[in-house]
Amino acid sequence: MKIAVLPGDGIGTEIVAEAVKVLDALDLKFEMESALVGGAAYDAHGHPLPESTLKLAKEADAILFGAVGDWKYDKLDRPLRPEQAILGLRKNLGLFANFRPAICYEQLVGASSLKPELIAGLDILIIRELTGDIYFGQPRGRREAPDGEFKGAPEAFDTMRYSKPEIERIAHVAFQAARKRNKKVTSVDKANVLETFQFWKDTMIEVHAQYPDVELQHMYVDNAAMQLVKAPKAFDVVVTGNMFGDILSDEASMLTGSIGMLPSASLNSRNQGLYEPSHGSAPDIAGKGIANPLATILSAAMMLRFSLNQEEAAQRIEAAVQKVLAQGLRTGDIWSEGTTKVGTVEMGDAVVKAL
Amino acid sequence: MKIAVLPGDGIGTEIVAEAVKVLDALDLKFEMESALVGGAAYDAHGHPLPESTLKLAKEADAILFGAVGDWKYDKLDRPLRPEQAILGLRKNLGLFANFRPAICYEQLVGASSLKPELIAGLDILIIRELTGDIYFGQPRGRREAPDGEFKGAPEAFDTMRYSKPEIERIAHVAFQAARKRNKKVTSVDKANVLETFQFWKDTMIEVHAQYPDVELQHMYVDNAAMQLVKAPKAFDVVVTGNMFGDILSDEASMLTGSIGMLPSASLNSRNQGLYEPSHGSAPDIAGKGIANPLATILSAAMMLRFSLNQEEAAQRIEAAVQKVLAQGLRTGDIWSEGTTKVGTVEMGDAVVKAL
Ligand SMILES: CC(C)[C@H](C(=O)O)[C@@H](O)C(=O)O
Ligand SMILES: CC(C)[C@H](C(=O)O)[C@@H](O)C(=O)O
Repeated sequence: MKIAVLPGDGIGTEIVAEAVKVLDALDLKFEMESALVGGAAYDAHGHPLPESTLKLAKEADAILFGAVGDWKYDKLDRPLRPEQAILGLRKNLGLFANFRPAICYEQLVGASSLKPELIAGLDILIIRELTGDIYFGQPRGRREAPDGEFKGAPEAFDTMRYSKPEIERIAHVAFQAARKRNKKVTSVDKANVLETFQFWKDTMIEVHAQYPDVELQHMYVDNAAMQLVKAPKAFDVVVTGNMFGDILSDEASMLTGSIGMLPSASLNSRNQGLYEPSHGSAPDIAGKGIANPLATILSAAMMLRFSLNQEEAAQRIEAAVQKVLAQGLRTGDIWSEGTTKVGTVEMGDAVVKAL
Repeated sequence: MKIAVLPGDGIGTEIVAEAVKVLDALDLKFEMESALVGGAAYDAHGHPLPESTLKLAKEADAILFGAVGDWKYDKLDRPLRPEQAILGLRKNLGLFANFRPAICYEQLVGASSLKPELIAGLDILIIRELTGDIYFGQPRGRREAPDGEFKGAPEAFDTMRYSKPEIERIAHVAFQAARKRNKKVTSVDKANVLETFQFWKDTMIEVHAQYPDVELQHMYVDNAAMQLVKAPKAFDVVVTGNMFGDILSDEASMLTGSIGMLPSASLNSRNQGLYEPSHGSAPDIAGKGIANPLATILSAAMMLRFSLNQEEAAQRIEAAVQKVLAQGLRTGDIWSEGTTKVGTVEMGDAVVKAL
C-alpha cells in the first residue's frame, strides 16, 4: 500500500505532519512518500503540480493532501496558481466522487452559528460530482459577444455540461451511500432554468429505478441553500454537480461551526482516492502551531476505510478523536470556556496516545 | 403613473390583494390594471406570459408581482411552466438589477435559525445581476458529447457568459447603493475556476476606480456561502451574478428566519421595475387566508421609492409595518408565544389602519 503525502501550503504542512504521525502509530505496513504541491511546488519547480508530483499521485493507492493557496500567488496567471494543482489532480486521476460529511460533534454543538436544537446530532453527507460541470467544460475564454444586447462587446464565457454516464455514475455512488445510511437522497438541481440540470434530474430518476428501497427527492439549488439553514437535519445524502456542490458543501460545513473537524474524500472508479480536510490553507495562522489537525487526521481515517481497506484502523482513529474531545482538548478554533486549549502538535500527540 | 398588477398563482392573489389595499389607502393618483401570469395565465390562455400581460407590463411604470408556480404544472414542457413568466418579464423589460435586502426585524430575531447575537440588527443588501449569466446564455441544449472521456454519449449543456457592459452597469448600481449605506461592496465570484468570473472581478476592479470612497472586497462564492452563516453582519452590499445571486440571496433571506417579511425590486435602466416578495407561491397554504402579506406590502413601498418617486409614501408604509409589528400582530410564519396570530386580510387591514 502506497500513500502519496502532499502537504501543500499554509497550515498544510503542520496538519499533515500530525496525520502522518497518527498513521505511523498504527503499525500497519504502508509506504509513504512526500512531494511538493501548490504554491510550494511553484516556488521550487515553477508549477503547482509538477510532473513528478502527478506521477507519484497516480502510482499511489491514496493521496493524503493538506491544503494549497496563499495570497502571495494571487497575481500569477491562472494556470500557475496553487488551486490548479487540486483541479489537475482531480481531473488526471478521475476523482469524480467527492464525499463531504457535515457532522456536528456532540461536544462542539456550541461552536455553531445555529441554535443547538437545529444542529445537535447533525449527520449529513454531501456527494459532489468533481470532474465535470462548468469546472472543466470547454469551450471557455474571452471573445467578442457573438449576439445579444451587447453584440461585439468584450465578453467572457464558460460551458456547463454533463454527459449521461457522468451523471449515472455519481447517482449510483449516492444511492449506494444512502443504502448504508438513512436511505434518502436529495438531488439538487436547477432544472427550472438549466438544460444541464434538467438532464441531471431526468437521469437521477432513471437510475433511481434500480434503488426502490431508497427515497429520492429533488430540490432546486436556491431552495437547498435555504433548507440547509432552516432544517439541516432533514437531509441524509445530498447529491449534486461540481459547482452547486462547491457552494452547498461549504455552507453545510460552516453550519456545524467546526469546519476544522470535517474530512473529505475524492474517489475514482478504482477506489483510488485523495483525502483532505474540508477547510483551506489558512495562511493567516500558518506556522503558528495552532491549526486544528483533526480534519486531516479524520481524512486519514477515511483513506484507510475507502482506499486501503482497513476499516478497523479507520475506526480506531475515529474513536481516538472522540476520546481526545471527551478529554476536553481543543485547538483554538473549537475552544470554549471550560475546555483545554492545545496546539497542533499536542493535539496530534493526544490522538496517538488515545489510539 | 401606471401600475401593472400581476398576482400570479398560489398565495399570490391573496398577498397582492392586501398590497393593493394599502396602495389604495394612500390616496395617490395611480392607475392599476391587473392581468394573469404564471400558471393562472397558462390555464386561461395556454401560456404563462401571454402577449397581453407582457404588453401591460411594458407600458406600466411599475409591476406589482405576487408569485408563480404550483406542483400541478411540473409536468409541462419548460417553455410553458409558470417560472418562464418571471424569466420572460426580466428579459423583455431588461430588469438587470435585482435588489434583495436581508433585514432582521428587531421583533423577529427569535424566528431565525441563527443565534440572536449573530443576526440581531442584520441589514445587508444583495444585488443580483438578473438578465445575463447562465440563465440566458446561448447555446444550450442536448447533443452528443463532442469530446472528453464520454465522447459520443448524450449530454446536456448551457453557456455562462457576461459581457463587459453588463458587468459595468451592475457594478455602478452596487457602488452607488453602497454610497447610501455603509460604503462597502463585496463582489462574489469564482475567479479561481471560471473565465466569466475572472472577467467579472477584473471589471469590478476597473469600475471601482470611479468610487474611491467605497471599499471593494472580493470573495469566492463558496466562501461567501460560509461567511453568510458565520458572520452575516460583516456584509453591507453584496454584488454577484445571476446564478450565484439566486443561491446566496435565498440563503441570506432564510438566515433572517422571516423571509415572509422580505421584499425585492428588479429594475431596468429607466427605473421601470418589478416588485415582488422574496418568497414563493407556497401552494401548500394557498387559499387558506394565512399567508403573510408584509413582504408584498413592503415591495409596494420599494415600488413607490424606486419607480414612482414617492419616497414619503414609501416611508409611510414602512412605518405602518413597523407599527403593526410593535402592536404584536403576526401571521403564522412569524408568530411566537406572546404575540397575536392574525390572517392575511387582518394583517393588511392593520397596516391600512396604521398608515
Ligand atoms: C480551490 C478551488 C478550485 C476548489 C473548488 O472550487 O473546487 C475548492 O473550493 C474546493 O471546494 O475544493
Ligand atoms: C423561479 C426561478 C426561475 C427564479 C430564479 O431562479 O431566478 C427564482 O428562484 C428567483 O430567484 O426569482
